[in-house]
Amino acid sequence: MNKTKEKVNAAIVIIGNEILSGRTQDVNVVTISKWLNELGVKLEEVRVIPDLENSIIKTVNELKKKFNYVFTTGGIGPTHDDITSKSIAKAFNLTYGYHKRAYTILEKYYGKSKFNLGRKKMAMMPIDASLILNPSSAAPGFIIDNVFCLPGVPSILKSMLGGLNNKIRGGKKILGKTISVQTVESEISKSLEAVQRKFREKVDIGSYPFFRFGKIGVSIVVRSSNKKKIDDCYKEIVSFLKKKKINMIGEK
Amino acid sequence: MNKTKEKVNAAIVIIGNEILSGRTQDVNVVTISKWLNELGVKLEEVRVIPDLENSIIKTVNELKKKFNYVFTTGGIGPTHDDITSKSIAKAFNLTYGYHKRAYTILEKYYGKSKFNLGRKKMAMMPIDASLILNPSSAAPGFIIDNVFCLPGVPSILKSMLGGLNNKIRGGKKILGKTISVQTVESEISKSLEAVQRKFREKVDIGSYPFFRFGKIGVSIVVRSSNKKKIDDCYKEIVSFLKKKKINMIGEK
Repeated sequence: MNKTKEKVNAAIVIIGNEILSGRTQDVNVVTISKWLNELGVKLEEVRVIPDLENSIIKTVNELKKKFNYVFTTGGIGPTHDDITSKSIAKAFNLTYGYHKRAYTILEKYYGKSKFNLGRKKMAMMPIDASLILNPSSAAPGFIIDNVFCLPGVPSILKSMLGGLNNKIRGGKKILGKTISVQTVESEISKSLEAVQRKFREKVDIGSYPFFRFGKIGVSIVVRSSNKKKIDDCYKEIVSFLKKKKINMIGEK
Repeated sequence: MNKTKEKVNAAIVIIGNEILSGRTQDVNVVTISKWLNELGVKLEEVRVIPDLENSIIKTVNELKKKFNYVFTTGGIGPTHDDITSKSIAKAFNLTYGYHKRAYTILEKYYGKSKFNLGRKKMAMMPIDASLILNPSSAAPGFIIDNVFCLPGVPSILKSMLGGLNNKIRGGKKILGKTISVQTVESEISKSLEAVQRKFREKVDIGSYPFFRFGKIGVSIVVRSSNKKKIDDCYKEIVSFLKKKKINMIGEK
């Protein structure tokens, strides 16, 4: 039972009109994805949806069945457009109300006299949820089954992830190796395809053109949970690059 | 028949392992969303999915029915992991092969002697697709029904949008007004909720905390396709801010 699973996956649901309207640039996907990589969890889907109860309920109910973990961001603040907590309670058919511990935490943080209705709203969630503590600004996130509800403000979200490490049971860590070369994609596409075909099941090879310091190039990224396969694959790539006399300009 | 529709909506499908792995920060959503706002089209959902044929086919088939327009980004380049064009052909049950005009454009751009197999792959798509011309690097995107396939490289994508303006039939333009105030969300949450309730159907009010130049504040964003409603709503917000003696620090 304790055996590490080969593949553990996750999805993110970004709840926020401000992302859809183009007003705000999301940066939370990169933060959560990198953190998940470290834990051996592969992010396999992201959805950005509006602050609408029906959208939240439908999306979360669909994704919680499809993925090992679901992370929501946004909509757990004090204002009228923060409806994530209530919607998640509905999605799971749970009682929505003041969460005792969250209430105590927030009351202590603000002081009784400044603990107004808006702030009290941040203690409302499914009443038996596990809390995700917030070392930046007190207002906690929460966990129901495999769904983790986090805030949308990037610095606050980031500060809360560390406390979650022991709540995630990851699989084999996904490792990556990148080699940057001075060429265009079309020069290496056939050879790269041949290598990918050979390592089909075990390794993902991605190819990403870049333009840096006035030079064009391609980053070849090899990802797998199997270190040996990455090394083998990498060797084959280097071998065809040498044959083609393509300049390697960096690796990491 | 030519009457402007009140609401026209869209979804974006970002096809790219590099976004899911956290390696690359997406910036195309903001670009496309702002461009759509100008055309009177509301972005209502974004999905980020892996470079997998099944995911692409399933997602596109689902969203093309749900939204007036669907935009895909990524996966139309020359390498083995660029499988968007083939997958879209399958989704629509269309013949995938060399698109004559795309082939001619690319052959002219690269010159016959440098038009290798990788580059030729960029001319492969549903053979009867309408092209989306690419003023940056020649390789075109394409349109099938209400699905628009664009590249992932942000500067190239951006350069291709202008040419699409006449292919989109937008609705009423979505207008926005923002007022920034020196307060915390919980101080204004009740009043804001009351205003939102009053303008329920016609106006979206969002509230976004910020930290800038050492000061905390909240941006209140009012969005609607009805200018008069925005102004009315805005007046009510300013009125309660004044009553509460909350400092307004900017508007746009």
